[in-house]
Amino acid sequence: MGEKDGTRGSGSQKADGRDDAKEAGRVSALLRLPDGDGVDLTSYDARDTPAWRDGKAAGLAATRDMRQGLADLQERLWAASTAGDRRRVLLILQGMDTSGKGGTVKHVVGMFNPAGCRIRAFKAPTPEERKHSFLWRIRRALPEAGEIGIFDRSHYEDVLVARVRGLAPHKEIARRYREINRFEESLADEGVTVVKCFLHISYDQQRRRLLRRLDNPAKHWKFSAGDIEDRALWPEYRKAYEIALDRCSTPRAPWFVVPADRKWYRNWAIGTLLLEHLEALDPRYPKADFDVTEYRKQLLKSV
Amino acid sequence: MGEKDGTRGSGSQKADGRDDAKEAGRVSALLRLPDGDGVDLTSYDARDTPAWRDGKAAGLAATRDMRQGLADLQERLWAASTAGDRRRVLLILQGMDTSGKGGTVKHVVGMFNPAGCRIRAFKAPTPEERKHSFLWRIRRALPEAGEIGIFDRSHYEDVLVARVRGLAPHKEIARRYREINRFEESLADEGVTVVKCFLHISYDQQRRRLLRRLDNPAKHWKFSAGDIEDRALWPEYRKAYEIALDRCSTPRAPWFVVPADRKWYRNWAIGTLLLEHLEALDPRYPKADFDVTEYRKQLLKSV
Repeated sequence: MGEKDGTRGSGSQKADGRDDAKEAGRVSALLRLPDGDGVDLTSYDARDTPAWRDGKAAGLAATRDMRQGLADLQERLWAASTAGDRRRVLLILQGMDTSGKGGTVKHVVGMFNPAGCRIRAFKAPTPEERKHSFLWRIRRALPEAGEIGIFDRSHYEDVLVARVRGLAPHKEIARRYREINRFEESLADEGVTVVKCFLHISYDQQRRRLLRRLDNPAKHWKFSAGDIEDRALWPEYRKAYEIALDRCSTPRAPWFVVPADRKWYRNWAIGTLLLEHLEALDPRYPKADFDVTEYRKQLLKSV
Repeated sequence: MGEKDGTRGSGSQKADGRDDAKEAGRVSALLRLPDGDGVDLTSYDARDTPAWRDGKAAGLAATRDMRQGLADLQERLWAASTAGDRRRVLLILQGMDTSGKGGTVKHVVGMFNPAGCRIRAFKAPTPEERKHSFLWRIRRALPEAGEIGIFDRSHYEDVLVARVRGLAPHKEIARRYREINRFEESLADEGVTVVKCFLHISYDQQRRRLLRRLDNPAKHWKFSAGDIEDRALWPEYRKAYEIALDRCSTPRAPWFVVPADRKWYRNWAIGTLLLEHLEALDPRYPKADFDVTEYRKQLLKSV
């Protein structure tokens, strides 16, 4: 994707006709960041429930009903990998503190068979990680063929907190957007379906959630001084997200904007995004590479 | 534990008074491999349901009811680790093909928050793994502080299949039992509660389960020629398990024998073992290391 380095894809259709996100289904198409110049997050209502009009109780039930479909597709994906299918899925969760990244892992990823999930939460880089390129630790945490990978934060931190807190020169950050696009394009080449979700919460909702944490001693461990500092930098973070989403939403690795003020909607939406992407992959159980009748005969004899 | 290298612990009570398994609760005490000379697996009924007398429907319900308790304790364990508590749990699953190691991960481990689980299935060692000691790949897969680790097969393969298939000289295998005991003792020193479960199925039940796999094309990918070969070596494997269980059941890392012909019982039993061990650890939420009132005031101002 050299021709699009650092800029938005010019349309939703690639020259070769591939358009993974469009194929992924109705909710994916609706939540997908639209093409166009620039992103204005203030134009998105964090309390909205796109594609869902039946309220909370039905939303919770619909999410529970996804469990079997998700688990079945995951098993097919895994089974296919035992016969050489290299495909896999990588869910990337980004969003401000309290936007629900951890809750999504618990409630949505919790519907999968944990044996086939590779989950990684990225914190501030360790001294060892700092010695390498910002993508080094990311590459080491990628899902293997047949797995569902989940990143709670990701390489996007290196153009978000890095930009807001001035952890890298402007020129270096500009270079990173291009590097991220090339990296994600190469993931698509290797059979990794990348599903990038921005969990969009409002400034007000974050205040309510932080206060709730403070009022519950069992949640104090989730709190850090950084949370208050980052909140004071809300406009700067929003700007950094707008640029990252704009620069790094590409046809083969688009961003999805998920309104996240309502937890039940966030879970339903991300579950549906995963379901639609897995359905688009349509993984198949491999055929037996052995003589079923012969094995059956041997087994029947072994009493 | 140098003085007990290669032999059973001399009793259920250590000199220093620690006896993790005994403290872990009633079901743990009942399923724990008893002290004494030698293990005879033919004396265990794989269809038995020790400590459970209420049948299948109630057993399934009781397992579902464990979910909240397991998740709460896991969150406490994780929270405690953020304040420096180094403790963690490692569930080791061993058993013949079809004994339900994978099903246990799906149904029991699936009750935890997947973000706090570190799951690893060990296959035949790769060329790289073969270059190192048999414990090398095990050490790299250990859970971090606050995590629940799950091993589907483990270092015990190196005294099981290695013994049955003659993959290592007898003397080397004898050395490995001692090395395993020292290794597991060192894990206990580092705060790792090791819960080793032998999933005990009958020869008959394995036949039924293998036939069921053969009769369902969606399960053929789970099948391999090795399954039939290993079944033909059933008595040799039983003997290898009896020796491994006998030599490597120690006061701080005892073996639990879990009858596994009934899947619902297996899930209930292993869920209960985990619950009892987590309750014995009794992890606590850390206290706030910041000024709650001050943070509250700042938040209330940030509208």
